[in-house]
Amino acid sequence: MLNTDDYQYSLPIRVRDYETDSQGIVNNANYLHYLEITRHDFCEQAGTSFRAMQEHGLDPVVRKIEIEYLSSLTMGDTMISCLRMRRAGARFIFTQDIYHAVTHTPVVRATVTIVCLENGQLSRGDRLADAFAAYL
Amino acid sequence: MLNTDDYQYSLPIRVRDYETDSQGIVNNANYLHYLEITRHDFCEQAGTSFRAMQEHGLDPVVRKIEIEYLSSLTMGDTMISCLRMRRAGARFIFTQDIYHAVTHTPVVRATVTIVCLENGQLSRGDRLADAFAAYL
Amino acid sequence: MLNTDDYQYSLPIRVRDYETDSQGIVNNANYLHYLEITRHDFCEQAGTSFRAMQEHGLDPVVRKIEIEYLSSLTMGDTMISCLRMRRAGARFIFTQDIYHAVTHTPVVRATVTIVCLENGQLSRGDRLADAFAAYL
Amino acid sequence: MLNTDDYQYSLPIRVRDYETDSQGIVNNANYLHYLEITRHDFCEQAGTSFRAMQEHGLDPVVRKIEIEYLSSLTMGDTMISCLRMRRAGARFIFTQDIYHAVTHTPVVRATVTIVCLENGQLSRGDRLADAFAAYL
Repeated sequence: MLNTDDYQYSLPIRVRDYETDSQGIVNNANYLHYLEITRHDFCEQAGTSFRAMQEHGLDPVVRKIEIEYLSSLTMGDTMISCLRMRRAGARFIFTQDIYHAVTHTPVVRATVTIVCLENGQLSRGDRLADAFAAYL
Repeated sequence: MLNTDDYQYSLPIRVRDYETDSQGIVNNANYLHYLEITRHDFCEQAGTSFRAMQEHGLDPVVRKIEIEYLSSLTMGDTMISCLRMRRAGARFIFTQDIYHAVTHTPVVRATVTIVCLENGQLSRGDRLADAFAAYL
Repeated sequence: MLNTDDYQYSLPIRVRDYETDSQGIVNNANYLHYLEITRHDFCEQAGTSFRAMQEHGLDPVVRKIEIEYLSSLTMGDTMISCLRMRRAGARFIFTQDIYHAVTHTPVVRATVTIVCLENGQLSRGDRLADAFAAYL
Repeated sequence: MLNTDDYQYSLPIRVRDYETDSQGIVNNANYLHYLEITRHDFCEQAGTSFRAMQEHGLDPVVRKIEIEYLSSLTMGDTMISCLRMRRAGARFIFTQDIYHAVTHTPVVRATVTIVCLENGQLSRGDRLADAFAAYL
């Protein structure tokens, strides 16, 4: 169940009706959008932004996603999207779990691996690590 | 009913299951995607592409859309997306109608007004008119 | 410019980075999503919900949208999405304008016509009018 | 590199311009859409459809996705989306790899685990296995 102490950041997100499909539940691809929104909001809390990074020639790209679908969200639901990060060399590993906001039951569990391009080349990630120093 | 002689271009498009919503029908916003796909494919048939135009400092932007929803598409359906264009000064008017591929009943009727930016400024559209000379 | 007295409801919405396209601006189709989110949130403020209406055999459907694109939104921007409604017989007309949250410049102006199906048949709209009596 | 003998099904899919984001490349979430389209088309080739299964009380749901992003697709690109499947008890494992249609370089590698609900309960998958007998 949800324990916010396990995470460095959490964001409530409401399901938008158009994100549900003919089964009446949120389509699997939309969860990658929720995860991305959460990472980008987290960046801003950390004092940077995806856009600012791009403008400085720093391009974080998704290298790998593992996502388990445990339960469903439907129209009108609100989720709590939680995140913690760690560095593994040139890779940054985001543990991203989504819970139902009311029942606190897990909805998805994901691990997202980000690497950082600098001017088009794979970087060692030192500049990204600096930006997130408070969280690493 | 569908009469392809009324149009300069037509493109069959199949509904993707994730484009339907909880009502089991294609969400209204997706039709704007279908219209855009059709315009971009038409551009290629006309010997240019959206990307090529952008690379030459030419930026067609949507200025106005009027769209009527007449019937619904659902999972598994295929549509015929039809288009004809005309120029009205600096504006290019696309008549874009979508029909059910099997029954030929009208699904949406739309009028899309495009203007052209050149290096960020509104242009008179002469370069875009050149690109589509065969259709104007 | 934005004058909230002109509207019955307004909702701040933040652009999600994935909603921008290769031109760096929000793709035209996403504005229909913003308009839909605003109508659905307005419904909830009015004491009903899209889902609740569906469960009672009441199915509001979009019949027509006219939308003018006046300026662009980009990554990181927040908009104010404003709405007022009126009834015209069986049709409900939503005036929906979106403004940049900081500059208050108009982004899109839209008119959305909704009709109401009851058990699959076009209704006179009396039940929908009841639900929105406070706003009509 | 692409070897179609490694797969049971392959589907060419063209990138739609709106699927690219501000980095000019296809957003990570869209690949889940491509994978879904491929599975659904494969179902049809196997003589069934997602809709038909739903109508018979059979509800295949995504349980887990692992996806690696190896290179990018951009506007105008076409991909070859390849699939093979195997059964592991109640789970159906789809190996789904996407290649650039021209260069045949790998774009994403994914493993998608599907389970099957029957009337809302997790099933042993025997009915789904029957539907795909020719491929298992």
